[in-house]
Amino acid sequence: MDLKVYLKKKKGVVDGFLDRALPKSDAFPASLHGSIRYSVEAGGKRVRPVLAIAAAEAVAGRDAFVPGLLAVASSLELIHTYSLIHDDLPAMDNDDFRRGKPTNHKVYGEAVAILAGDALLTYAFDLLTHPEHVKGMKPKALVNIIREVAIGSGNMGMVGGQVVDIESEGKEVDFATLEYIHTHKTGALIRASIRVGALAADASMKQLTALTRYGVDVGLAFQIADDILDIEGTQEEIGKDVGSDVARGKKTYPAFVGIEESKLRARELSDSAVKALEIFGPSADPLREIAKYIVDRKS
Amino acid sequence: MDLKVYLKKKKGVVDGFLDRALPKSDAFPASLHGSIRYSVEAGGKRVRPVLAIAAAEAVAGRDAFVPGLLAVASSLELIHTYSLIHDDLPAMDNDDFRRGKPTNHKVYGEAVAILAGDALLTYAFDLLTHPEHVKGMKPKALVNIIREVAIGSGNMGMVGGQVVDIESEGKEVDFATLEYIHTHKTGALIRASIRVGALAADASMKQLTALTRYGVDVGLAFQIADDILDIEGTQEEIGKDVGSDVARGKKTYPAFVGIEESKLRARELSDSAVKALEIFGPSADPLREIAKYIVDRKS
Repeated sequence: MDLKVYLKKKKGVVDGFLDRALPKSDAFPASLHGSIRYSVEAGGKRVRPVLAIAAAEAVAGRDAFVPGLLAVASSLELIHTYSLIHDDLPAMDNDDFRRGKPTNHKVYGEAVAILAGDALLTYAFDLLTHPEHVKGMKPKALVNIIREVAIGSGNMGMVGGQVVDIESEGKEVDFATLEYIHTHKTGALIRASIRVGALAADASMKQLTALTRYGVDVGLAFQIADDILDIEGTQEEIGKDVGSDVARGKKTYPAFVGIEESKLRARELSDSAVKALEIFGPSADPLREIAKYIVDRKS
Repeated sequence: MDLKVYLKKKKGVVDGFLDRALPKSDAFPASLHGSIRYSVEAGGKRVRPVLAIAAAEAVAGRDAFVPGLLAVASSLELIHTYSLIHDDLPAMDNDDFRRGKPTNHKVYGEAVAILAGDALLTYAFDLLTHPEHVKGMKPKALVNIIREVAIGSGNMGMVGGQVVDIESEGKEVDFATLEYIHTHKTGALIRASIRVGALAADASMKQLTALTRYGVDVGLAFQIADDILDIEGTQEEIGKDVGSDVARGKKTYPAFVGIEESKLRARELSDSAVKALEIFGPSADPLREIAKYIVDRKS
């Protein structure tokens, strides 16, 4: 299979859905909806929605129709986008640029940026309960999915990781703290992405367990690869200043174990993720290719 | 019935539940969980949870056991608390005190305050899907309840109202804008509180319609009464500076129609709310008393 074609196609489907599902940018209050669309439409690879879709396909078959899948997958992008808006705020990372464009608060002001983040987080749960978008889903499965999203993004997941990340800045942290940040700030939502896709496709317990293993491994591999890119990537490739994490005093994986050992570890995690999929046939090929791509990517 | 006893009893039940359901304040990361508990435990009358419980009682009978009701009711308080934390931020209302105590960001810093708000909002949906706390609820009803909470607190509800409120500060606004702010910033979540209580108790369409009418009227009456209190209350009674809304350039109901007309309007809304309950027997007495209390209260 051609992963590039696959990623592009799925991203297109997600982008199309988000465009239909989000309020127009001039809907009242226009600053809020303009701000929301500004960040959602700023680009991004839609990693989380694509992982959810690929997980559903592993269970239900390639391109199988899974009721509600697009809403479930897209809700993760809303959560991810809100987290970027809040992360960029002056009180947090204080970033002026994101994906080569001025950050949300630089364009809409801090107050609206905070509220746009709040609204996006809330809209994820609006989407997940929208009668039209989740038509055909079993309510019980939907409740389980909503729970995965809440836990992956909340105090014991993404927000917990962000708190520890912010508080570790410029401090000496140990390796356990770094791993906590990685597995929570990004890992928890990636794990949730895989699981909600599997749940939407009515996965068996065995399938869900295998896919969860995949999600955990890929989530950590993704973050280690990010750390490596921060050191080795070019500004053009990664869309932010090279070495910005290091400059900010953020501890990275390579800072602890060196760049070669980091690459090895990312590769091992990628291999382990692929191995977790052995109970699946070719329908899991996109997940397999994604696991390899994540550690080989240049941006 | 004695409303004071009723309110105190229900507040006690909600406080007890929140104490059991929230992570301990020293759970890792402790700053996050300390910050969350600091604001949740700062007091407050638990208006939204009590309204949800009273609405459920109107349908199911006084003190009837309604599965999941406490989780549903308490989730509204988490949303309300997050909105207060974010409203108080320097980029928003920039308040140093809330209920007589330093605001969250004054104690925990802006970054943690923003993240505690995010976590509280997310935790509302965690609570609403917690297997133990919502045991016995029909998944379909739960999905409908989650949707009410999301819509009441999101871009077309509370957050929408907050955006317009912030943007109206110090500007000439018309009466329609003031009503938009009132019906969205506070009204939408109060309406949702009534509806989720009704839905938890498996209300008929007729009952839900009547209670929704009640919720809309009471929500607006509550806000008009707040505006009046801002002018007439004493600092001790309302726990913030008297006239602070006016001083901040926020338009209030009395600024448009005068204080006497405002009182008359609040009274009419309260009467209308009570009238909406005529299909209910004595089980709706708490709601009736609350509607009267809201316009008579001194704090």
